[in-house]
Amino acid sequence: MNDERQATVRLVDELGASGKVRQIFDDIKATKGIDRVPALWRALATAPDELELVWTSLKARMHPEAVGRESNLDAKTREIIALAVSATNGCSYCVNSHTAALRKQGVDQETLGEIMGIVSLFNSTNALAEGYQVEPDVFPPLD
Amino acid sequence: MNDERQATVRLVDELGASGKVRQIFDDIKATKGIDRVPALWRALATAPDELELVWTSLKARMHPEAVGRESNLDAKTREIIALAVSATNGCSYCVNSHTAALRKQGVDQETLGEIMGIVSLFNSTNALAEGYQVEPDVFPPLD
Amino acid sequence: MNDERQATVRLVDELGASGKVRQIFDDIKATKGIDRVPALWRALATAPDELELVWTSLKARMHPEAVGRESNLDAKTREIIALAVSATNGCSYCVNSHTAALRKQGVDQETLGEIMGIVSLFNSTNALAEGYQVEPDVFPPLD
Amino acid sequence: MNDERQATVRLVDELGASGKVRQIFDDIKATKGIDRVPALWRALATAPDELELVWTSLKARMHPEAVGRESNLDAKTREIIALAVSATNGCSYCVNSHTAALRKQGVDQETLGEIMGIVSLFNSTNALAEGYQVEPDVFPPLD
Amino acid sequence: MNDERQATVRLVDELGASGKVRQIFDDIKATKGIDRVPALWRALATAPDELELVWTSLKARMHPEAVGRESNLDAKTREIIALAVSATNGCSYCVNSHTAALRKQGVDQETLGEIMGIVSLFNSTNALAEGYQVEPDVFPPLD
Amino acid sequence: MNDERQATVRLVDELGASGKVRQIFDDIKATKGIDRVPALWRALATAPDELELVWTSLKARMHPEAVGRESNLDAKTREIIALAVSATNGCSYCVNSHTAALRKQGVDQETLGEIMGIVSLFNSTNALAEGYQVEPDVFPPLD
Repeated sequence: MNDERQATVRLVDELGASGKVRQIFDDIKATKGIDRVPALWRALATAPDELELVWTSLKARMHPEAVGRESNLDAKTREIIALAVSATNGCSYCVNSHTAALRKQGVDQETLGEIMGIVSLFNSTNALAEGYQVEPDVFPPLD
Repeated sequence: MNDERQATVRLVDELGASGKVRQIFDDIKATKGIDRVPALWRALATAPDELELVWTSLKARMHPEAVGRESNLDAKTREIIALAVSATNGCSYCVNSHTAALRKQGVDQETLGEIMGIVSLFNSTNALAEGYQVEPDVFPPLD
Repeated sequence: MNDERQATVRLVDELGASGKVRQIFDDIKATKGIDRVPALWRALATAPDELELVWTSLKARMHPEAVGRESNLDAKTREIIALAVSATNGCSYCVNSHTAALRKQGVDQETLGEIMGIVSLFNSTNALAEGYQVEPDVFPPLD
Repeated sequence: MNDERQATVRLVDELGASGKVRQIFDDIKATKGIDRVPALWRALATAPDELELVWTSLKARMHPEAVGRESNLDAKTREIIALAVSATNGCSYCVNSHTAALRKQGVDQETLGEIMGIVSLFNSTNALAEGYQVEPDVFPPLD
Repeated sequence: MNDERQATVRLVDELGASGKVRQIFDDIKATKGIDRVPALWRALATAPDELELVWTSLKARMHPEAVGRESNLDAKTREIIALAVSATNGCSYCVNSHTAALRKQGVDQETLGEIMGIVSLFNSTNALAEGYQVEPDVFPPLD
Repeated sequence: MNDERQATVRLVDELGASGKVRQIFDDIKATKGIDRVPALWRALATAPDELELVWTSLKARMHPEAVGRESNLDAKTREIIALAVSATNGCSYCVNSHTAALRKQGVDQETLGEIMGIVSLFNSTNALAEGYQVEPDVFPPLD
């Protein structure tokens, strides 16, 4: 298959998975409401402990309702953060994945354009602040 | 002053500014509802054309109402994107500036913790996707 | 077409563009002396306000003569900066685009090698300065 | 001294250096026409082999005339590349060092503003190209 | 205190901590064999759920013996990875923290120099591979 | 050939190489015990001086025994650093190359998972330390 062509490990086949990996694969699909395990999780499954650590961490932050955690951010805002980070890092897999998630949440290309515009703006001003080595304006810490 | 200690250019003094720089300084304060020009703009003012280009670009994206542009994102979401990009890039000036802005918008430290958690999560998964060179899951482009 | 395969939005067709998008597409081709709109602009055209903001910003900095702005840098130096930033960020589209621009300006592969050598050198020393946390040598700000 | 406060190694004192380190320190000062060894080299001197490798590499690329190598770039362009990379990476020591070098070569703050503007512009478009995952426009390799 | 000056949140005082935060602070000190909670954990304690998620994740990967997990890497190699990532990202807090950890494990400055040399080398070749857009040499995935 | 499709320069053919390039190609193959010159070196060969500078630098750090240099790190640890840096930078060519090298040294996918887990962990905590702008815990420099 095409999505297995370039990964540096052989992706774990969804059907052949058993034990802890199988349970996590099932939880990923149920929690995210999807019917296929995305490729990154199939790569992580080559090291089951890592699969578990990453999924635990992502589930708590991106699906807080599934672990009974209260959240002050809505699901769309969380995906927007994910896309902002991924575009800034230039992670191809991640940009594709989070754009697809936003799209599923009803984000149209006009709004995507706004998000991208802000991401690009701050990559630009970050370079300016670093390039001029400007000291932070003083403000008291948050509490 | 302390905030002028390490910048590689001498920050333009707010009171001494005239012409285009003075106008933009006034617009920055009016648009943002602040009574002092932040240090980055005072650094950019050493090259007035650049000051104008950066302010035009930031005003349109972060203060769309001020230029009669419709926006599908609210002001808090826009600042969250700014913080996500700045934390990912490790830009000290920018992190301080956007944390202060979020705070002014009423974001408490619990919510800041959630934002940081998501930013850190995707810096982590970005490294995994790149480290395993996982190919994107196929999905049709947005339109 | 091949260049539309992986973008997360459907590139706006050059021939089908109208209104503001059409005008900007025409200006891009005239200003750059090319007969086809590069893919990044066709992606940005899905959000016309962003297309306009990015083009205004790029035109002023990369084609200052077209907006009556004086420049202290020549066109080749400007493209070299573009390539240095793009190689440092690992942006595939951008590296390809700016290498093509340099080539059009007569840069041969020996000179490209020199540019790359310097880019790689400073990515190396940047890591050293950060890895040892060396404090800046003192020097007065520029003015 | 102030510049030794935060480095993670104790900077090698210029006067106390002997053998290979002393020779390289002398060569750095002579080649660069400065009368004090910058802090990064004093940090590298804690591992003399590394000092030698880094200096050999930097001398060949930034001072080609000192090693009888022909160059197609002038000294100012080379420093501009160094600053572009350093601002993009957000390396504080490096931004300070290369701004000082440009200043010594007569670059004024207007030109610095132009350089920064271009650096910030391409950090912005890099994020856009990655954020939309635009495929490179086709062009043949350089040769 | 000095380490609270610039953080954007007020660091949670070690003595005043209670409940989950207190337990985790105690676990951090016991697991790492230190008598003071490092500043990053005191910042994270402003959002206790995040403190827990980050500590769970770090404990499993950096102190596998404490959670009954088998490891194929020794403690020094794990810290070397931490330093390599931190130097590459230019994270000041992190570079300081992991250099201190390596030092505690007996790493001298010669070996630190070797590590830094390799980190700088691959930041350099990464830029070259991206700058020339070289395609990967073909090799079969690991399994 | 496939590996020449997207590079921005035409890779130098191994068989057609002569003079300095030929010698370095032969040294690369002998030192690394491989029978084909990897694509990055064939790209660098378009600028022979750069090829020499990069190879000298890499040979000394990754193959110290070949230049009579003592090393405190073993070959596997050196490749792990290379992979950690490359995954952090998201360099596709480099991740593939260093994963192949680790594999040749007998690293299995469980250990690769551990390495990736640590790389992803510290990309995560780096973002946290930067996002909260935490000041370094005080410790004396190494010497």
